[in-house]
Amino acid sequence: MSAPAANIAIGIDVGGTAIKGGLVETDGCILERRSIPTNPVEGVDHVLGRIAAMVGDLANHAASLGRAISGVGVGVPGTIRHATGIVEAPPNLPGWKNVPVVARLCWLTAQRVVLENDANAAALGEFLCGAGRGTKDMVMLTLGTGVGGGIIANGNLFRGELENAGELGHMIVAPGGRLCGCGQRGCLEAYSSATQTAARVIERIKRGEPSSLTPLVESGQEISAEQIVAAADEGDALAADAWRETCLHLAVGCINIQHMLNPQRIVLAGGMSAAGAKLLNLVEQLISENCSRMLGPLPVVGLAELGNDAGLVGAALVAMKTV
Amino acid sequence: MSAPAANIAIGIDVGGTAIKGGLVETDGCILERRSIPTNPVEGVDHVLGRIAAMVGDLANHAASLGRAISGVGVGVPGTIRHATGIVEAPPNLPGWKNVPVVARLCWLTAQRVVLENDANAAALGEFLCGAGRGTKDMVMLTLGTGVGGGIIANGNLFRGELENAGELGHMIVAPGGRLCGCGQRGCLEAYSSATQTAARVIERIKRGEPSSLTPLVESGQEISAEQIVAAADEGDALAADAWRETCLHLAVGCINIQHMLNPQRIVLAGGMSAAGAKLLNLVEQLISENCSRMLGPLPVVGLAELGNDAGLVGAALVAMKTV
Repeated sequence: MSAPAANIAIGIDVGGTAIKGGLVETDGCILERRSIPTNPVEGVDHVLGRIAAMVGDLANHAASLGRAISGVGVGVPGTIRHATGIVEAPPNLPGWKNVPVVARLCWLTAQRVVLENDANAAALGEFLCGAGRGTKDMVMLTLGTGVGGGIIANGNLFRGELENAGELGHMIVAPGGRLCGCGQRGCLEAYSSATQTAARVIERIKRGEPSSLTPLVESGQEISAEQIVAAADEGDALAADAWRETCLHLAVGCINIQHMLNPQRIVLAGGMSAAGAKLLNLVEQLISENCSRMLGPLPVVGLAELGNDAGLVGAALVAMKTV
Repeated sequence: MSAPAANIAIGIDVGGTAIKGGLVETDGCILERRSIPTNPVEGVDHVLGRIAAMVGDLANHAASLGRAISGVGVGVPGTIRHATGIVEAPPNLPGWKNVPVVARLCWLTAQRVVLENDANAAALGEFLCGAGRGTKDMVMLTLGTGVGGGIIANGNLFRGELENAGELGHMIVAPGGRLCGCGQRGCLEAYSSATQTAARVIERIKRGEPSSLTPLVESGQEISAEQIVAAADEGDALAADAWRETCLHLAVGCINIQHMLNPQRIVLAGGMSAAGAKLLNLVEQLISENCSRMLGPLPVVGLAELGNDAGLVGAALVAMKTV
């Protein structure tokens, strides 16, 4: 008699732009993956229905492999309530307000559903299976549509009194500065998310500043961080300046995290971390230029190892961890 | 036979300006107190010798009351190493570098000596005997010569990987702004310490801005936060503007603490907290004006109850807690 294969979990990562799903092993390995656009304008019901369909599809695939599903972990942006499984009011999912995600998805999928803040889930993924392996204190910044944060202290997610600690993207790093989706001015997210990095470039081009990216903007195409970095490398002054501004605010964020929490490692994750060394090297240089050595060593910053999959893997690990 | 009186501890709070000492009961009550100027320019040996003399004096007083001393807790600014009892390089004690405070004071006083960061000690004091009673998560900002911070998470001091978490005064709230004693620009401390609040007023008066505080500045006297607040109340525009700037940066600090750590309470302590409602009300107003409600409730901010004694009481409680 052979031992039964270990259980796997379904991870769902609900972003402002895309919903990603996958069948995930206990070691973080993704057996099968799916991705659909979020389209939050279609309304909560529509989005939840499509998530449920994705869960059903992945569960069927697991059955075809002869593997059992231990649960579904769902990572969503914004504040959640663990006790009730409710998502409060995520800034990047307009129209979502006090949505009982756990109850709704349980009913729609007939699976055990566990909810977690997306950045917390991603942090747990990197901590257990990626760049945080071997540490006990890690902070992660997720650079995507927004800037999420996750704090691991002494091996556990640090959630705070009302479960909304770790909202590191809404640290104010430029008082009176750019308006953020959350309503505050000068948030880290208002400068250093992938979306706001592109938005700052587009605003400046539309104000008439010269840039090699102008044709892209005029044709209405989206601009990625990689395109901005590539333009900067080719001598585009606007792209270089905007990218430096993104990295400077990230550096200030890392310095503040270091002085407040003194973690072993700060991990940069999310879509924009695909810029790799171009991101890490400039952030490290700007930390070195702006952080006091009188207060202890400089923060140790690294890139996520699970890349864009951290949220998906972490959501599945949340479901496994709470079996 | 009557029960022996409970032990008491000696608390010593080493600030940039004054060294305060006291005989402290387990409930935080101070039986006897001493205070001397720090005069760090006299050198480490001289300062440690005067601390030892203060400890001897307080121990004699305890003996005269028939009370036993359970230990001496010493709170010092800057980074410390618990394992070795060494103070690394406090920005506000020039000339102190890797000073083995525990070893030196043990030898000089023949008492058990325990070392703690001053702001951590003060936070523990307020948490156990003051404004934090009944909470399990509390963050304290100590507004004195510098701005110190202490984080209590789940009932314990949160120290971080290298024991220098909680350096909240060196959170950068104005990138590229005023130079801080730590070498960074735009730290919370560079705006919102008592010393830097006065320094900003003095700089502006010396640049020729009119103020009712000009005669004080010209006579070379020190200016207190209370004097700045009083001048603002009497219509002094410069004093009002400077005080608002102090409180605005404090509000940004509190907003950042809330989004990062989501504690039950943020407590304002240290010399400048003597400004009382004039401090608290303006900080609360500026939080309300600048903090997003989409991310959860506004931070709950209160004044320290132990006032200027939190560091002294906390240092003694650290000694009691580690018996």
